Amino acid sequence: MNSEIIYRPWSNVCEELLEQKDSIYFVIDSKVRTHLPSWIQTFPKIYWVLDPEREKNLKSLELIAEAFVKSGISRSSKIIAIGGGATTDLAGFAAATIMRGIHWVSIPTTLLAMVDGSLGGKVAVNIPLGKNLLGAFHAPDKVYICEEFLNSLSVLETQSGKGEILKYGFLSLDIREMILNQDKIDLISMACAKYKKELTDRDFREKGDRIFLNLGHTLGHAFESTLRIPHGLAVAMGINYIFKIFELHGLLAEWKKLALSLGLPIEKLQVQAYSQFSLTKLINAMRADKKKDGQDIQIVLLKDMGEPFVCRLDLEQFLKKVEEYDEFKS
Amino acid sequence: MNSEIIYRPWSNVCEELLEQKDSIYFVIDSKVRTHLPSWIQTFPKIYWVLDPEREKNLKSLELIAEAFVKSGISRSSKIIAIGGGATTDLAGFAAATIMRGIHWVSIPTTLLAMVDGSLGGKVAVNIPLGKNLLGAFHAPDKVYICEEFLNSLSVLETQSGKGEILKYGFLSLDIREMILNQDKIDLISMACAKYKKELTDRDFREKGDRIFLNLGHTLGHAFESTLRIPHGLAVAMGINYIFKIFELHGLLAEWKKLALSLGLPIEKLQVQAYSQFSLTKLINAMRADKKKDGQDIQIVLLKDMGEPFVCRLDLEQFLKKVEEYDEFKS
Repeated sequence: MNSEIIYRPWSNVCEELLEQKDSIYFVIDSKVRTHLPSWIQTFPKIYWVLDPEREKNLKSLELIAEAFVKSGISRSSKIIAIGGGATTDLAGFAAATIMRGIHWVSIPTTLLAMVDGSLGGKVAVNIPLGKNLLGAFHAPDKVYICEEFLNSLSVLETQSGKGEILKYGFLSLDIREMILNQDKIDLISMACAKYKKELTDRDFREKGDRIFLNLGHTLGHAFESTLRIPHGLAVAMGINYIFKIFELHGLLAEWKKLALSLGLPIEKLQVQAYSQFSLTKLINAMRADKKKDGQDIQIVLLKDMGEPFVCRLDLEQFLKKVEEYDEFKS
Repeated sequence: MNSEIIYRPWSNVCEELLEQKDSIYFVIDSKVRTHLPSWIQTFPKIYWVLDPEREKNLKSLELIAEAFVKSGISRSSKIIAIGGGATTDLAGFAAATIMRGIHWVSIPTTLLAMVDGSLGGKVAVNIPLGKNLLGAFHAPDKVYICEEFLNSLSVLETQSGKGEILKYGFLSLDIREMILNQDKIDLISMACAKYKKELTDRDFREKGDRIFLNLGHTLGHAFESTLRIPHGLAVAMGINYIFKIFELHGLLAEWKKLALSLGLPIEKLQVQAYSQFSLTKLINAMRADKKKDGQDIQIVLLKDMGEPFVCRLDLEQFLKKVEEYDEFKS
């Protein structure tokens, strides 16, 4: 069930893939086409994803299955996913379900996907009612981290990845050090990937410590869907506000230090920056979030830097606390 | 990953379910409605399956997920499947994928599903290109065997179940004895369920001995799809013809003894009984079958009664052997 994380130049990865060309099937985000060697661009067994977040659904799963079955996929074949988190989620869910599960390899091409997506084996598709409501735990055999993809990301994509990296700065003292030292971002992301791997290897099915990775996500998901901002920025914002709501002043000072060091747009991580902000919508989004377990909600907090813990609260009690927070009311 | 198989009166099962009514969601074949106590018939959290084999697809999966999410399903909820194999396959795949996997309980209502479906945790849906091409290994917590459902089966449904029971007669000497003694069919089916459970507990992901359960299935699946006969009858037929093709005369005599003892319609288990029989279609169906692993095909044969083994053959070589078999040519 465990993935191997490999930091390797993209050209070397392509050589390895070429050697396996008889048994592999690609699912590729069409945006990275220019990064592909010509043999991949003209490879017959590719499912191109044009608009990953919109295509991450059951319809695409069926199209992928149909296309791959037609071209002879078998239980010993392997799916190679190349793209951002939505593409690797879709490809991974296809790998989890085609013929009841075949092997797959994830090649994340965005900073966010390198530090967050695909690593822990959580794969999923969206349904009209909500995101990631159908999925599986199906870890890729390998995750390749290729820094070449980082150069062509948009500013927003880079910031989104950095928002998740900020999270790791709270969970791991080593990563905190790297961020404050302003180490190279691909090295920091490799450290985040390894941290996540250790946690998810220990707790594959998310019944224990893996939940620490949800730091900032309860509010983050709600910010993401109601303000329509990239996932990582929403998470950075979610961390900020969970500390504010629980009045954790020491952690708030740390948040600012890490965010500045990462070059995150601090002004955009305040609700005041968004004219469309609505407390009612925020509350409704949290109520609809699938992470709830019966009537309880699990909030990740920190005793100190690097020391996360889970706080189990009654959902309505927590929402009341959110509703009463000053900054949201004004 | 292991299921508990429980032989219990249906009314007692209903009492147990009533106690869990807050956390359960039903997927029920509408054909068994008359067997349901009124509290289940009017229960708010039910997805009714009207035509299981046709509805066993991704569209239904999405409808189930949408309906259950709307009524508040959470990771600690449980799906209760009541129906034949197609219903339990669909419900089990929903349980495998909703929120990345929740618990489920299988209550098979046909003889075939009691001895074959749902027991080993193989769940799946069909896609336009073929059956069971998307699925998972997700064992139910419990499988209830309630003999009450056996009384209302059609002759064909009973025969189909007996076709699979015939298979177990070759795999297990104990079951062979029960069949020849003409023991009660619900007791025989319980023995088959237990045999399957032992095998699948040992080999959950079908990488070893579990394949013995495929005895007769290579030809069986092809008979099923080309002659449009019930699964279990097609399997009984598949066993007959695999012994014929490999000229295993001793096993053929055993086949006849067991089939007679089970009251199977022997004359309907010969290709001569079907005007629509076509060798070309049979060959194409086998070539398209997903069980192939690369170019090889795995055929289950027997050294002796109760001693199955796997014979790995080149697919084309095997198909040639089938094509050359006399009875198929005339």
